[in-house]
Amino acid sequence: MPDGLRGIYLNYIAALNEQRLADLGRFVHADLTYNDQPWSLAQYQERLADDRRRIPDLHYDVQNLLTGPDEVACRLWFDCSPQGEFLGIEVGGRRVAFAEHVFYRFRGDRIAEVRSLIDTASIRSQLK
Amino acid sequence: MPDGLRGIYLNYIAALNEQRLADLGRFVHADLTYNDQPWSLAQYQERLADDRRRIPDLHYDVQNLLTGPDEVACRLWFDCSPQGEFLGIEVGGRRVAFAEHVFYRFRGDRIAEVRSLIDTASIRSQLK
Repeated sequence: MPDGLRGIYLNYIAALNEQRLADLGRFVHADLTYNDQPWSLAQYQERLADDRRRIPDLHYDVQNLLTGPDEVACRLWFDCSPQGEFLGIEVGGRRVAFAEHVFYRFRGDRIAEVRSLIDTASIRSQLK
Repeated sequence: MPDGLRGIYLNYIAALNEQRLADLGRFVHADLTYNDQPWSLAQYQERLADDRRRIPDLHYDVQNLLTGPDEVACRLWFDCSPQGEFLGIEVGGRRVAFAEHVFYRFRGDRIAEVRSLIDTASIRSQLK
């Protein structure tokens, strides 16, 4: 399937941007690992819902996207205003811009492994 | 050239692991951007040499590697003992393990753009 994972991944990001978290099971296995910890789909869904509650203007912007036979790597860009605390940082509604670099492994057409780094150092330096 | 960038990138990592920083010009343009800042090859070389001085047992371990037509994405893993301060963190020779997630853009067969995130939050939590 040419560009299969690329298309699936962009549909996943579209679902996040359109706040269709109920659709998440189409893109993510019932059991996955998140930064090498075992997570359930429900936990992953709750994490994404929590991000959305903290960041009402959350938008996932794909900056770099690479795919392999069963892997996706993506640099996501965020330009948003987290309310209160986010990732242990008291942002308090100020506008910040930052990157997330994520590697995903797919089993079939769904995500089975997520390894994510978020640029918290940049968020902190923007708040100084 | 099938797998061209993959082979070039693995040769670049081998050069770093074998401490052949004088070879860096084979893999990196004279002018590049590092996290969207203009850098020279000499600056990049000095940054890598500085990492090596701070971390005598530095080894670059490729965990995830994806390539596109002119891009490489890599999750690197480090298990090492930075002496003194590293990335603004006083590590003082203790052993830490952490990831770096990097996206590279190539122009021809050399790196022209590096976008890197290092998991400093994990380093800090391992030192607690």
